[in-house]
Order: sequence, then structure tokens, then C-alpha cells
Amino acid sequence: MENEDSIQDLVRFSRMLYDRQLVHAEGGNSSIRIGGEASPGGEVWITRTGSVLGRLSEDDLTQMTLDGEVIAGDKPSKEWPMHLALYKARPDAKAIIHIHPTYSIAYSTLLAEPSLDAVPAFTSALYRRAGRVPMIDYYPVGSRELHEAIAALAPHFYAILMRQHGLTVASSSLSKAFGIIEEIEQCCHIALLTNGNGVPISAAERAAIDELQGRTWPKTIN
Amino acid sequence: MENEDSIQDLVRFSRMLYDRQLVHAEGGNSSIRIGGEASPGGEVWITRTGSVLGRLSEDDLTQMTLDGEVIAGDKPSKEWPMHLALYKARPDAKAIIHIHPTYSIAYSTLLAEPSLDAVPAFTSALYRRAGRVPMIDYYPVGSRELHEAIAALAPHFYAILMRQHGLTVASSSLSKAFGIIEEIEQCCHIALLTNGNGVPISAAERAAIDELQGRTWPKTIN
Amino acid sequence: MENEDSIQDLVRFSRMLYDRQLVHAEGGNSSIRIGGEASPGGEVWITRTGSVLGRLSEDDLTQMTLDGEVIAGDKPSKEWPMHLALYKARPDAKAIIHIHPTYSIAYSTLLAEPSLDAVPAFTSALYRRAGRVPMIDYYPVGSRELHEAIAALAPHFYAILMRQHGLTVASSSLSKAFGIIEEIEQCCHIALLTNGNGVPISAAERAAIDELQGRTWPKTIN
Amino acid sequence: MENEDSIQDLVRFSRMLYDRQLVHAEGGNSSIRIGGEASPGGEVWITRTGSVLGRLSEDDLTQMTLDGEVIAGDKPSKEWPMHLALYKARPDAKAIIHIHPTYSIAYSTLLAEPSLDAVPAFTSALYRRAGRVPMIDYYPVGSRELHEAIAALAPHFYAILMRQHGLTVASSSLSKAFGIIEEIEQCCHIALLTNGNGVPISAAERAAIDELQGRTWPKTIN
Repeated sequence: MENEDSIQDLVRFSRMLYDRQLVHAEGGNSSIRIGGEASPGGEVWITRTGSVLGRLSEDDLTQMTLDGEVIAGDKPSKEWPMHLALYKARPDAKAIIHIHPTYSIAYSTLLAEPSLDAVPAFTSALYRRAGRVPMIDYYPVGSRELHEAIAALAPHFYAILMRQHGLTVASSSLSKAFGIIEEIEQCCHIALLTNGNGVPISAAERAAIDELQGRTWPKTIN
Repeated sequence: MENEDSIQDLVRFSRMLYDRQLVHAEGGNSSIRIGGEASPGGEVWITRTGSVLGRLSEDDLTQMTLDGEVIAGDKPSKEWPMHLALYKARPDAKAIIHIHPTYSIAYSTLLAEPSLDAVPAFTSALYRRAGRVPMIDYYPVGSRELHEAIAALAPHFYAILMRQHGLTVASSSLSKAFGIIEEIEQCCHIALLTNGNGVPISAAERAAIDELQGRTWPKTIN
Repeated sequence: MENEDSIQDLVRFSRMLYDRQLVHAEGGNSSIRIGGEASPGGEVWITRTGSVLGRLSEDDLTQMTLDGEVIAGDKPSKEWPMHLALYKARPDAKAIIHIHPTYSIAYSTLLAEPSLDAVPAFTSALYRRAGRVPMIDYYPVGSRELHEAIAALAPHFYAILMRQHGLTVASSSLSKAFGIIEEIEQCCHIALLTNGNGVPISAAERAAIDELQGRTWPKTIN
Repeated sequence: MENEDSIQDLVRFSRMLYDRQLVHAEGGNSSIRIGGEASPGGEVWITRTGSVLGRLSEDDLTQMTLDGEVIAGDKPSKEWPMHLALYKARPDAKAIIHIHPTYSIAYSTLLAEPSLDAVPAFTSALYRRAGRVPMIDYYPVGSRELHEAIAALAPHFYAILMRQHGLTVASSSLSKAFGIIEEIEQCCHIALLTNGNGVPISAAERAAIDELQGRTWPKTIN
């Protein structure tokens, strides 16, 4: 059982996202939930609007209730409703990262349709950590349609690929969320490097991992 | 409203360009305009000729008037007329970066003709920050033709792709200029990764962003 | 003759694997053998289960006997039987690194069958340092089949490519093991960049290097 | 006129080669010539055999005469005869770097024949700094054939691409040599990214640069 992340961890991991070239410019936003088990829902610390993850400091964090009230700090990231919706849908989620990584986006521009199983598992590590990764269609940043599409998938998946936009991951810690991102970005990179000729792990191996982890995946979402 | 950049910021961002592999060798040059709103035109600090952005120090900066007179420092970058022309054409511009980033140049070598809309917007982030990005033809470094081609486009665009040469970006701050570069480099990278099969965001979405930002684009330049 | 690696070296090289983008998330594990020549077999220091190579500290290391008994520290990496099997099969091995590098994995997904000579030698440096690199088929992480496949090849090769999984290298020092990984990753990268059109060094040159080093390779393994 | 490089500079630039992913493992070697104008030929400081450029220290440097006598330090890099031959052939050369960069090597594996003009100039920066870059055929490391092939080209070119091996550059300073490498690596990268469809700068533009620099290139070498 790992310790809860602190706001220092949030600053540190956000900067690491930039150092690993997973985000750039003013793109991306991240948050943690503190006290999620003791008090109902807990409180959220999220990056402020206009902050740069690669040069983040503690002053760039905004403290909010799960109902969307600002407790302290500047105006939160435009994507705050998406973060709160994810925390509500996933009581186990303590950390959320939303970024614009190059290979995941590039791969998404090649997919014609939304899918509940979009990222090929070229490694078992991808499937163990990230499971099935659905892709939603393109919706404008900050739109209600985007948040609804995310909220519909949130209870069922660890990570969501957003077409022509990026990735959103919710997990039990920043370290786990970061790792899920790295696995997805690696498999999308491999998909691009191998031009549709690379062979992912088998359906039987995926089923074995699912059984080991005692998890199932939805066939449709409505 | 953000603070004006300082010469320390200019050193810091210039070094970051190298750290992010956006420039190399003695390539590239950068400048800021200080006092642009109080005094007419303001003064410009620009990297000196032969300086290396990745190892820049404050001693490598030259102070100039908008009319091209050196106030202090060594001989400015050969591209100083381009910087001054851009500051004159764009009163809002406070920072200019010119670099030779690999993916943008690679993409430019695939385009047969100059264009007013050269970089595919695979993300809305590209279009929101960089808008339409025109490409000019190849002209020799430091030539009058190059500076005229840049000057003709400057009033209408945030960034200009220079065929077989690089990118020039003018913006309200170094951070914004840096972000525009990162967005363009990412979309050119995606264009190369997806070999013409990737789907950019729709014309309707681009129009919606333009309307939100209250901006229009020229259909022709003469 | 180089000095034996210390546990500080193990921490340093493990972090370098992450810094060079050769591993990510909680992937990979590494170990050294100390005292391997004096006492029979020596003792092994290995990364603990769940440790992150990129943020490793000495507290993340577990001390074990060659027979699999934990002397000190937390639960060792799930792959500890593979490490011990390798040390037993290769008395000269003092350092083992197992990682999930992108280009090696990508290349492995293109190969239809296990092979005793999987990685094309585009440079003599690859062939001098890594020799022939076999590829085993995919087996579940931590499975007996995986460890048996590794153990069968271990006495004959410096490095083993694991399909859809990664690389395992055993060498006389961490520096040498690290270098072998870098050579393999470079040649797999070149294979992908050149799409089957790149020409490796000739069979005659490979034979000359083998002769110089006084080594032979198995034609079959059973 | 720039200052002569010091052995501290040699250490610093050698490490930068590793940091920029231009070399790895125990690959590559570098040297400077000190006092080349005062005393006939000057003295050479070169990396020792088995040194790792990415972790170089001053203790890893060997001091030699131009005639191949070791003045101080360990056994020099196996490639020392190549360095000395280059310094003799090029009285202006004060710094030599030999490395194994991925894109340059990858591109060389696609070329069927040695050439006096191997690297396409996708930018004028490549052509201004590196000029024409010839490629020699593959020869074993440290062989007399390799050194003779290098020596035959050395008086006429700044840089030499070595098929399935790497790059060797001689210039008036480490900074200039480093820059030439970066330009070549960028153009080889662009060649690979654009699959033969990218358009280099024109023959007329190359001729104009040659004229400006007052230089000519050999049509044949014998």
C-alpha cells in the first residue's frame, strides 16, 4: 500500500512529464486527491489555468472541493470538470494526468472510429498496467461533449485516448498514472515504427492477464 | 497580463531551445523587445553573431534600437534585419525566436510550393496557439529576398515556416513563442510519422477556433 | 581488469537506464554479483519488486544468495529466478540488466520466429560487444517457460532478445552490460529506420571478429 | 579568432556527445591539438583506449607527440593513428571527433557505393558548415585500410562518413567540430524521415555558398 501523494509530488511528477517530452508548451494538466478515504470524496489539488507543467511550482496549484468550489489558489485548469468527474466515477483514483504526447496523438489520427480497445498491446506490461485503452472521438477542449464522453468511460478504464488531443489517466498514485502513460506512449510508438506489421501479444495472453487481475471489460458503452 | 521578459529570460529560453533539441550548433537566434509600449518601438536585445544558443550567456546579447543602431554589445546576429522588420510589423510582438528544428525542416522539404497554410493541425492546441502557419520558399540566409518574404507575411501570422531552413516565431512573450514552436514541431513530427494518412482536425473546428479568437487569415499576399 | 561494481554503481547505472529512455514505469530490473570469484557463486544484489529504476535508491536493493535465499532487504524482483539462473550458467557474469527498450521490442514484434541470430549487425561495434543476439518467443512474465528458455541460451550468448518483452544482458560489469544494450538498441533502431533496406556488415567481417575473439556460436539449442 | 581548446573543454565536449545521444557505450574518441602554430605540429591530447566519452574525466586523456609517442597517460584510443594522420593532413585542424551516431550510420547502410558527396544538404547550414561529406566503404576498426582511406580524403573535406561505422570530423575547434556533426546528423535524420522524397537545396545555392567561401571540391581521389 503506497503513501498518498503530496503537492510536492504533484509538482515533481508534472515537471517530469515535460522532461520526458510527454507534454509541452502550456499543454496538459494534473491533479491529486487528498483525504479521499477519510472525508467523503476528499479535496483536489489541480494545476491552475495557463500553468506550464515543465516549470510548475507549488504556487501554480489550486485547491478545490469535489463539488467544484475553489478553496485556495488561482483559477483552475479549464479541464477541472473532467478531473472532478473522473474522481467521482472512480473512488480509487487519487491522481489524474492529462497530457498531449506525440506518439499517442499520432496513432489516434490514424484511427477512423472511436473504439473500446484502441491501443495494441505489443507488451504484456502495457496490458497489465493500462489494460484496454479506449479512444473517444475529437471534441472541443473544455466542451460538455468531451466531459460526457470521458465520464461515460471513466468507471471502466484506467486510461482514455482522446483523438487528435491526448491521453487522460486516473490511477491510485502519480507514479502509477505516470507509468500507464509511458506504457501507452511506448506501444503507440511501436505501432508507428512497425507500420501495422508488428504483432501484439495474443488474445489468450490478454485473457490470462485479465483473469489474474480479476477484471472484465465492457463490450459496449451507452 | 504577463510581465515583460528580461535578458535573463532570454538566456534561459535560448538554452532551453537547445536542451529540447530544437536547435543545434551555431544555428538560430532570438531576441526580446523591452519598453515597447512606453517608448516608440522600444529597444531590442538580440543574440550576437556566432553565439551558440545552447551555451548562451548575457555577454552574448547585443542591445539595439529599432532602427538598427547598436547601443551595446558585439555584432548582432546576421538575421537582425529580420527581427527588426518583425517587431515593426507586429506592435504586439515582444519576443522572436528563429530556429532550425528537425521535424519542421523535414516536413518543409516535402512541400513543393510556398503556401499560406502549410502545417496540418493534428491537434486543436496547434491551431489555437499557432493558427495557420505559412511556408515561404528557400532564400539564402541573410538575403534581402528572405527578409522581404518574411516581412510580407509578418503582419498576418504568428509563425513562418522557412523551406529547407527553419521556423521564425514572433509572440507576446518568450514562453508563448516557445510554445508555438513546440506545437508546430509536434504537428510536423506527426505528419512525418503518419505518412500522409493522419487526419487533422476538421475545417469546421478550425473555423470555430478562429471565431472564438476573433481572427481571420489572408487568402493571398501581395 | 576492471573493479567489481558496488551497490552504488548498481543504483547509478539503473538510474542511467531511465535517463537514456531504455526503461520506464516500474519496468526492468538489475543486479550485480559480488564476491563471485572468492566464495562459490558469490552473493547477489537485485532491485526489489515494484521498484522504479529511474528513481532507485540503495533501500530498493535486496541481498540474496545464489540459492535464492534473501539475506537482507524487501521482496526481490519477480524475475529473480532468471537472474540467478543466468549467474549460475555464466560464471563470468557479474552484472545483469533486464529492460524493455522501445526499438528492440518494436523490432522483435516484426520477427515471426525465435532465432539464434536475430539482431542485424549494422556496425562492427554491435558484433564485437554483443555478438549474435538470439530471440526467444513470448512467454508470460515470471513463468517457468520464460526462465527455461533464458537458461537454455544463457551459456552461449551475451544478450537475449525476448519477443514482445525486452532484453536481458549478462556481462562482466554494469558498464559492459549497459554498452551491450546500447549497441543492440541502436541496431534495432537502424533496422526500423531503414525498413529492411539497410545493409549490415558482411558475414566475412563477422567471422573475422569471431576469430579475433576466439569465439563460436551454437547452430542449434536443445 | 577563437581561443585554443583546453583539456577541460575536451572533457566537456566529449560528455556532451553522450548527452546529445551522438555516441554510446565505449564508442567514439576525441582529441585536441595544442600549440599547433608555435611548435611544429603541436601536441595531441586524445581519449585513452576503453574510455567512455559520456563519463570522461581528465585522467582518461593521453598526451602524445604528432609522431605517435606517448608523453603522459594510458594507452591511447586504438584510433590514434587516424587522429595523427588527420592532424598532419590538415594543419588548420585543432580538434577531432570520431563517433557512431545513429542517423548517420543508418543512412550509410542505405548507400551502395563510396561517394565524394554522400550527405544530402537539406539545409544551407549543413552545406556552409560541413560542405560536401564523402563516404568511405566499410573497413575493420583500427585497420591500415581504414586509416589510408581517411588519410586520402582528409586534406579535402571537413567530415568523413564511414559506412556502417560512424563519422569523423576535424575542425579548428571542438565547438565547430561538434556543430558539423550536429548538422550532418540532422540531414541524415531528415533523409530517413522523408524516404527519398525530401528536396535538398539546389546545386546553384551550393555553388553560391562554395563561391562565397572560396572553396572547391575534388571530383576524384586517387
